[in-house]
Amino acid sequence: MNTRIDDLPVRDELRGKSPYGAPQLDVPVRLNTNENPYPLPEPLVERIAERVREAARHLNRYPDRDAVELRTKLAEYLTRTAGHEVGPANVWAANGSNEVLQQLLQTFGGPGRTAIGFEPSYSMHALIARGTGTGWISGPRNDDFTIDLAAAEKAIAEHRPDVVFVTTPNNPTGTAVPPETVVALYEAAQAAKPSMVIADEAYIEFSHGDSLLPLLDGRPHLVISRTMSKAFGAAGLRLGYLAADPAVVDAVQLVRLPYHLSAVTQATALAALEHTDTLLGYVEQLKAERDRLVGELLAIGYEVTASDANFVQFGRFADAHEAWRKILDRGVLVRDNGVPGWLRVTAGTPEENDAFLDAVREVKKELNA
Amino acid sequence: MNTRIDDLPVRDELRGKSPYGAPQLDVPVRLNTNENPYPLPEPLVERIAERVREAARHLNRYPDRDAVELRTKLAEYLTRTAGHEVGPANVWAANGSNEVLQQLLQTFGGPGRTAIGFEPSYSMHALIARGTGTGWISGPRNDDFTIDLAAAEKAIAEHRPDVVFVTTPNNPTGTAVPPETVVALYEAAQAAKPSMVIADEAYIEFSHGDSLLPLLDGRPHLVISRTMSKAFGAAGLRLGYLAADPAVVDAVQLVRLPYHLSAVTQATALAALEHTDTLLGYVEQLKAERDRLVGELLAIGYEVTASDANFVQFGRFADAHEAWRKILDRGVLVRDNGVPGWLRVTAGTPEENDAFLDAVREVKKELNA
Repeated sequence: MNTRIDDLPVRDELRGKSPYGAPQLDVPVRLNTNENPYPLPEPLVERIAERVREAARHLNRYPDRDAVELRTKLAEYLTRTAGHEVGPANVWAANGSNEVLQQLLQTFGGPGRTAIGFEPSYSMHALIARGTGTGWISGPRNDDFTIDLAAAEKAIAEHRPDVVFVTTPNNPTGTAVPPETVVALYEAAQAAKPSMVIADEAYIEFSHGDSLLPLLDGRPHLVISRTMSKAFGAAGLRLGYLAADPAVVDAVQLVRLPYHLSAVTQATALAALEHTDTLLGYVEQLKAERDRLVGELLAIGYEVTASDANFVQFGRFADAHEAWRKILDRGVLVRDNGVPGWLRVTAGTPEENDAFLDAVREVKKELNA
Repeated sequence: MNTRIDDLPVRDELRGKSPYGAPQLDVPVRLNTNENPYPLPEPLVERIAERVREAARHLNRYPDRDAVELRTKLAEYLTRTAGHEVGPANVWAANGSNEVLQQLLQTFGGPGRTAIGFEPSYSMHALIARGTGTGWISGPRNDDFTIDLAAAEKAIAEHRPDVVFVTTPNNPTGTAVPPETVVALYEAAQAAKPSMVIADEAYIEFSHGDSLLPLLDGRPHLVISRTMSKAFGAAGLRLGYLAADPAVVDAVQLVRLPYHLSAVTQATALAALEHTDTLLGYVEQLKAERDRLVGELLAIGYEVTASDANFVQFGRFADAHEAWRKILDRGVLVRDNGVPGWLRVTAGTPEENDAFLDAVREVKKELNA
């Protein structure tokens, strides 16, 4: 008889759980994981091959444990695009922003501590909390998915969390958080404990507004988390990073696994950073497509949540999962994040978006019939 | 005034700690981190560039979350070299065996649970335990660094740990653990709890003896951890893996970060696995050099611990750190692992080993003078 998970001495809170992850289905149009639809340009592909070839010649040696060259280039990118100067001492990198967040919770959360997020939001925050033994508090939002500041401040004062997550633009709703709200949450968090505030800016390059980076000045408990998965079109690379006070960067090094970031990952990320301007050109195209999706969805008669990301939340459906299935039946995979009444679609190429819009037009008619 | 780590709300157990890692000093002969001294052969370097170029063309998409092709090839490697058939369902891969071990402790250890190791051993076991909130129990060894089975069984019965680490060959001592000892520890662990037994075989390809892989049959609580850092000469790649009952592989997927293994890492590892035979040829050279180091160190008048790894523990010194410094003064970097009286040297190229032997010959004279 085969052994099953429940026959093993796994932790009680894992029993009956399933691994996180969207279904990876083979359909013509995949708009479900907020990937960038544009493949890397061929000159960048060649540059990656070249830099990895060079790195492979030293692959018998451990990689630069502190990824100094990569952190320097990431700092230059942030300084240039966010209009606020940071250096390599302010920056840390890991295998995807998920690993960045895991290291932060191992440092500032963990057993006997708690983190709060305002839900619905990126569901990995709660899962990484569970994985690090950090207690999770689900904070409130308004009906339009903006943060209810008074309610959030009240929740922070009541629960005194060690870590406060603010996702801006928020996933899966697309909603941006105004800087003054982040400042107010930071002050509430300091008054209560003091605690760390993690602003997850995975989608910030797609926003109408600016990065929170300038807020780092004088706020050593603020951390800004970023990724190369979206704006850099490099989800396959798994490169996340953070910007914060240098003391935060020092602190996460107490928990990071040594040599966590491979030489090939560092080489590939450095190549991509050489092509920043080209990649940010794709971001502009995607922002225009995102705005087109919003306009067309409204014209069809759907409700849409204001979006500053490369995706759009749309609804409402009496049964969102039924609608998800009907859209899939038409060859288009969107995401059912479990927000009652709503689905999420990633902005793809113009052709992919047209296919999506055709599908949801038909589904709208069918559901109204 | 600059913020320091202690000004931040870090976890209490991290206060005053330093990041793990050997000093990365720029000296002519580096024999301190058990790296393979042979660079990858140029045809493999080209194959890596080729496979990574192909992967880069799809880098805008997330990687295969389950790394099925890589796990299939790793399973074929294990089946071929260890004489025991395993399939992809038995194998899991992550960013270095450190991440494999972290996932295992998140699944089977964690807050309110404990792990035991027999020390001195690979010090990351205790550090990963701390990082995952797992209590750590330091088990005993004999004076010759073999495992004292009676004392180990007593410690397991007394502490009833959730996880038992067995490192074979052991780092930093080089000592292999006989299969019958592992079986006895497994049985003691099952009688006490039941608990998981993790056999860390990072250096097994250098051993005079065989892998424990055949012991997996009928032992669903046994996990064998491996790495491509040593025998495959790919420390810079950060590719660790495990072999176990398929239920263990299912269980770690409950805690793994989604898409933890980048497309470039998967592509590079697959290229290296195509060149297994060449790389295992280097292993044979290193085994011969390891045996030569043992013989010459004994001839010089040092004590040596029996080694089944690509390194040798030698001594004894009244002050090991002083000896470490004197060897470094001669341009050779070895490792002071904090085992009183002993140092560890990695088997390098014949030229590197000659430089090391010259240095320790001189140091021996100087210390005896």
